[in-house]
Amino acid sequence: MRRYIHLKTDKLFTDITPEVSDFIKDQGDGLVHVFSPHTTLAIWLTENELLHHADVRFFLDANAPISKEPEGLQKNTKYLHDMISLRNDVPEDERINGHSHIRYLFFNSSETIPVADGNLMLGEWKKIFAVELDPVRQRKIICTFTAT
Amino acid sequence: MRRYIHLKTDKLFTDITPEVSDFIKDQGDGLVHVFSPHTTLAIWLTENELLHHADVRFFLDANAPISKEPEGLQKNTKYLHDMISLRNDVPEDERINGHSHIRYLFFNSSETIPVADGNLMLGEWKKIFAVELDPVRQRKIICTFTAT
Amino acid sequence: MRRYIHLKTDKLFTDITPEVSDFIKDQGDGLVHVFSPHTTLAIWLTENELLHHADVRFFLDANAPISKEPEGLQKNTKYLHDMISLRNDVPEDERINGHSHIRYLFFNSSETIPVADGNLMLGEWKKIFAVELDPVRQRKIICTFTAT
Repeated sequence: MRRYIHLKTDKLFTDITPEVSDFIKDQGDGLVHVFSPHTTLAIWLTENELLHHADVRFFLDANAPISKEPEGLQKNTKYLHDMISLRNDVPEDERINGHSHIRYLFFNSSETIPVADGNLMLGEWKKIFAVELDPVRQRKIICTFTAT
Repeated sequence: MRRYIHLKTDKLFTDITPEVSDFIKDQGDGLVHVFSPHTTLAIWLTENELLHHADVRFFLDANAPISKEPEGLQKNTKYLHDMISLRNDVPEDERINGHSHIRYLFFNSSETIPVADGNLMLGEWKKIFAVELDPVRQRKIICTFTAT
Repeated sequence: MRRYIHLKTDKLFTDITPEVSDFIKDQGDGLVHVFSPHTTLAIWLTENELLHHADVRFFLDANAPISKEPEGLQKNTKYLHDMISLRNDVPEDERINGHSHIRYLFFNSSETIPVADGNLMLGEWKKIFAVELDPVRQRKIICTFTAT
């Protein structure tokens, strides 16, 4: 069984636990796989605590900072990916997002969560987040349930 | 098929390969999913080599150091999550663990491993570890087998 | 259903999307699990863009540099794992690869990808890569398809 979740991401962390819960609520025991087909939207399980989310933002800003002058080989150029003039076949709507691709190293393309009798076995504190590493975008997430 | 592994974590890496192997030993071909429902206990596959484990500890201490003075905005404050006095709905047993949540970025909530005729296909060097990012705790891990 | 992909890795990123696509092309709907049984070969989904791959290389070199003098406790010793003379049971073909094991923290042992009617649901830009963190090696990857 499969369902898309459509969302417009307007911040780093969007809690999609309610949508995933709704998808599996009539199922029995099994596993739900939550997958992002986008290269700069990730899936991650963590606590829904705003100051922790701010800590993640600071961590990313420190460890994979955004390019300030992508086209110059100056001090603030951070990513070759952002030197658009060097690349072939650049999409028309390409963004300066070398940092987004590097930040992806800290997250996941998907998470798989056990389901018992139509309920997510997430424990007390874990929630399912869509992690937006680019500016606001329309996104889709693919959920797949496997019975066991 | 599903089984809980209960364990008291007394160090960073606890090898849970024997428990997972025991769980799937009477199964045929498929996949085993090993999941942590805790926000500061991760699952990771790596070599069971003590000096490598020490390297991981040093890496984490360097890249996501523990807060020394969580309640002050001093030099050693590292994480907003640790400024308990700013937060609502703080659990009674909350710990100073902003660093634990950030360290989670380097690990996984779950690992999925192929199974052939009741045996883990882990290769020669990979073992399954529960990675404890908080102090000693009583934990549980959820294992799910899917036949293919 | 299961298949091995055999490959000789001669660079950091090897695109294995064609091999995985071929494996699932006669299947219906489900999930494909792509697993590395090696401790220094990872699986990762990202864009097939050469300058981005160079950015990842620079990021790894900066954040988990290779040891220059593994056997000395000098300034350039980075990893205890590389001090072979301290370890028991060292494999005959052991390499100086403490950095490779630490770099594994940024990648995954496996990725799971949705399949619809024999096609990978990877989106427009994601491709499946084998990420080689050691020098050139003969490797194998285990693919498992689960129908849903």
